[in-house]
Amino acid sequence: MTDNKFKPAPEPTVRRLSRYYHLLTSLKEEGINDISSTTIANEIGVDPTLVRKDIEYMKVGGKPKTGFNVNLLLDSIRSYLNWVNPKDAFLVGCGSLGTAMLGYGRFKNYGMNFLAAFDVDDLKIGTTIHDTPVFELQKLTELAKRMEVQIGVITTPAHAAQSAADLFVEGGIKAIWNFAPIHLRLPENIILENAQLTQSLAVLTRNLIHQQLK
Amino acid sequence: MTDNKFKPAPEPTVRRLSRYYHLLTSLKEEGINDISSTTIANEIGVDPTLVRKDIEYMKVGGKPKTGFNVNLLLDSIRSYLNWVNPKDAFLVGCGSLGTAMLGYGRFKNYGMNFLAAFDVDDLKIGTTIHDTPVFELQKLTELAKRMEVQIGVITTPAHAAQSAADLFVEGGIKAIWNFAPIHLRLPENIILENAQLTQSLAVLTRNLIHQQLK
Repeated sequence: MTDNKFKPAPEPTVRRLSRYYHLLTSLKEEGINDISSTTIANEIGVDPTLVRKDIEYMKVGGKPKTGFNVNLLLDSIRSYLNWVNPKDAFLVGCGSLGTAMLGYGRFKNYGMNFLAAFDVDDLKIGTTIHDTPVFELQKLTELAKRMEVQIGVITTPAHAAQSAADLFVEGGIKAIWNFAPIHLRLPENIILENAQLTQSLAVLTRNLIHQQLK
Repeated sequence: MTDNKFKPAPEPTVRRLSRYYHLLTSLKEEGINDISSTTIANEIGVDPTLVRKDIEYMKVGGKPKTGFNVNLLLDSIRSYLNWVNPKDAFLVGCGSLGTAMLGYGRFKNYGMNFLAAFDVDDLKIGTTIHDTPVFELQKLTELAKRMEVQIGVITTPAHAAQSAADLFVEGGIKAIWNFAPIHLRLPENIILENAQLTQSLAVLTRNLIHQQLK
């Protein structure tokens, strides 16, 4: 573990690092080996000073003329975002969104590995969805404890999300990734990340107003 | 259209307004009619000053003792976020995430209405997914122009996302909601909102490090 792991970056920086990662992956595929912070800034559409500050959190050295090595930067971002060693995760709610999540095999590249899924539907319990076994919801707490699972993902309807969260907390989970359109009440030591699509959609629909007024 | 529509709020405020909306919806179902900014702040876990500033963007009046009327605040948020009159949208990429999106009927409540979906898979073209008709991708540009569609949603694999975006731009779309893990290159006048789940996951996996160091 290196020093840079200890310097916490603000959330907007973490979000941008993830966007740089996608950009750099594309550029790497195009055969580009070195990149300047100004190029990154132009491509993403943010201020170059901001890009330099973001990259400083990871303490990656750049060269004055050629800029940053793309591979090195990609590795640094993966390491900084804790994507190198995937953490085990359980998912509750095997509806269409839950199924889509289980089918996205690349989450392993982004630090998360689905061990099992849970549902209340007898038709789903005992099956596998995209190679992940589905268990009855009652087994969640015990299995989470036994397997020391760190991440709980909630893709249930709104009305079922709080009780799913409570089961995760009882099972000793450390972080909850919540997709249900509801405000969850959790103990303070639990990390909660809301991935509610409505937040992202709100930014888009709100920006449409400004567009219309131009 | 009221005055408040013209005052632009920063993106973090817009995201928080969406979270307040979910909280207020839950409280309303619990029979609560009035709420203070301090209560909202405590529930969401942010500073009360921030909540008050966020609400100021919408110019909703509160009473000194009882605080804000929950219904009035809900209506104000919906109006401010442009959720009152849903905009028409096309979706490209009817894989598992695209199918999940089409199945989430509540997007209408959040300002977006799916008119049609597009794919390159002959088995999907000509069918309907959750009541939305699926057309061949080649028809996108012409249909978008003819129906004056405003929002384009991209749920394709990464390699197909840029060409889908180009078709949307050619079709006169105003905003793109991108779920593909790729950096899109778009003309400046197009609104781009990246809903890449990896951004949200990055915040969670990064926070897990801080948790482990406590």
